[in-house]
Amino acid sequence: MKFASFLGPTGIVAGVVRGAAVVPLDGGDSVDWAGQPTGLLQHIGGGREAITTGTEVPLDSVELVAPIPVPRRNIICVGQNYVEHSIEFDKSGFNATAGKGIPDRPVVFTKAPTTVIGPEQEIPAHDELTQSLDYEAELAVIIGREGRDISPDDAMSHVWGYTIINDVTARDIQHAHRQWFLGKSKDGLCPMGPFAVTADEVDYRDMLIETRINGELRQSAKTVDLIFDIPELIATISAGMTLVPGDIIATGTPPGVGIGFDPPRFLRAGDVIEMTITGLGTLVNTVGAAGNP
Amino acid sequence: MKFASFLGPTGIVAGVVRGAAVVPLDGGDSVDWAGQPTGLLQHIGGGREAITTGTEVPLDSVELVAPIPVPRRNIICVGQNYVEHSIEFDKSGFNATAGKGIPDRPVVFTKAPTTVIGPEQEIPAHDELTQSLDYEAELAVIIGREGRDISPDDAMSHVWGYTIINDVTARDIQHAHRQWFLGKSKDGLCPMGPFAVTADEVDYRDMLIETRINGELRQSAKTVDLIFDIPELIATISAGMTLVPGDIIATGTPPGVGIGFDPPRFLRAGDVIEMTITGLGTLVNTVGAAGNP
Repeated sequence: MKFASFLGPTGIVAGVVRGAAVVPLDGGDSVDWAGQPTGLLQHIGGGREAITTGTEVPLDSVELVAPIPVPRRNIICVGQNYVEHSIEFDKSGFNATAGKGIPDRPVVFTKAPTTVIGPEQEIPAHDELTQSLDYEAELAVIIGREGRDISPDDAMSHVWGYTIINDVTARDIQHAHRQWFLGKSKDGLCPMGPFAVTADEVDYRDMLIETRINGELRQSAKTVDLIFDIPELIATISAGMTLVPGDIIATGTPPGVGIGFDPPRFLRAGDVIEMTITGLGTLVNTVGAAGNP
Repeated sequence: MKFASFLGPTGIVAGVVRGAAVVPLDGGDSVDWAGQPTGLLQHIGGGREAITTGTEVPLDSVELVAPIPVPRRNIICVGQNYVEHSIEFDKSGFNATAGKGIPDRPVVFTKAPTTVIGPEQEIPAHDELTQSLDYEAELAVIIGREGRDISPDDAMSHVWGYTIINDVTARDIQHAHRQWFLGKSKDGLCPMGPFAVTADEVDYRDMLIETRINGELRQSAKTVDLIFDIPELIATISAGMTLVPGDIIATGTPPGVGIGFDPPRFLRAGDVIEMTITGLGTLVNTVGAAGNP
């Protein structure tokens, strides 16, 4: 099953995608006490069948937002989880923990929930803060069932589904502050979507991840090349730490990011980024013009 | 004004502390869609005067929980923000980014919201995962007003108040995974409280932070010794990143943590940890027995 969230007349609505249309979920327009949308989160947390309500809306008539526009807590991200990317990052000079070789355990950090934007939305250039904005296509896992100390064998039973994430990174800030949180967490640096797709619809071991910048293929890898695969990541991350429904784990980016080139090819105003993952669609975003949005 | 949250007959209640009693806030027993307590968060987010309701309860008759038991998103933490602690950490061998000297910019990472426990609650030993649990007393800032690109001059107008945080850390995990999130985020590794105190009640530039383990003084420093002070931290963290009401920024720990000793003095089952900060009270927790709680 495929889900999307979109801008309705009175706010954000989560719905089920049926062909070229989206049908609102029952409670898909829910908000929390702070007015933040919780439609898809509540559906995932409820663990129920998708009950739809109201009339279907043509997908091409609505503005999609991220399937989970405001995550319950920070997005959990894995770094250096493809061999060739780990090497290109270490060589780039932007990794404050370089020189330790390919990770023998997952490198885990977070992005602030305020980073999330939807498909087609502009990525802020943040050019007053950074001169080295970079893209990172990632398969993101959405947790459906609470758990701790989850074994690799049981891990997939905690997965609700998947989406695409662009873990946009300000390389200079990532490096200067040693820990990566600030360089990863400027507003708008986490395009997500266009859809959230339930686990039964894809084979997580065999998905192709591709990034095109202005039409040029830059990243192309299969999830089979992950150093730590999804069951292993869930086991490691949940060791002693409770995962909750709606948690998002971005599994790491393949080689071919901007700092993989010499000289680096950082994002520039107007660049069109297309990220495609098997079964999950294509996430398209443009880099905004200079200036603080 | 001083606030506390406690276990009432039907759930967690946020209230105002008056003398030796606590009086429930209007809406202090609110929960969100997932059943998580939001009483103090809604009060902070509402920016209103504290309206109380119901009868006052003697503080010594209730079980306090953390003032913000479930933060809206990850706790933002600053590392190596006291000179002597930065040196002791680098020397300890547990810092994957050691060798770079005293930070010239704040080192920022996060802890999962599921780490939060209250005063008097047991810190899980997690002894199946770590053999190097360590304590870190920290002054934590609670944000009251949303903002981005906040200037140091304007920073204090975004501060609602303060609390004490023990940024408990599994040193071996912190080191092994290079980025610090996992070693900082096991369940229960963030004792918080006992109170949340509004900014007008203290002078953030002149607070004494002290830690005693089983009565022995281990940490003792003043906030004037912070490398990056609170206005500077808020300016740096909010640069391009929106801070929201209820956000918590732990400002870093003074020297005297377990790895500052040779050999290191890690926490052991039954250890009683007392952390006192001027005007904020004393946060007391005991380390739990071995085994997975």
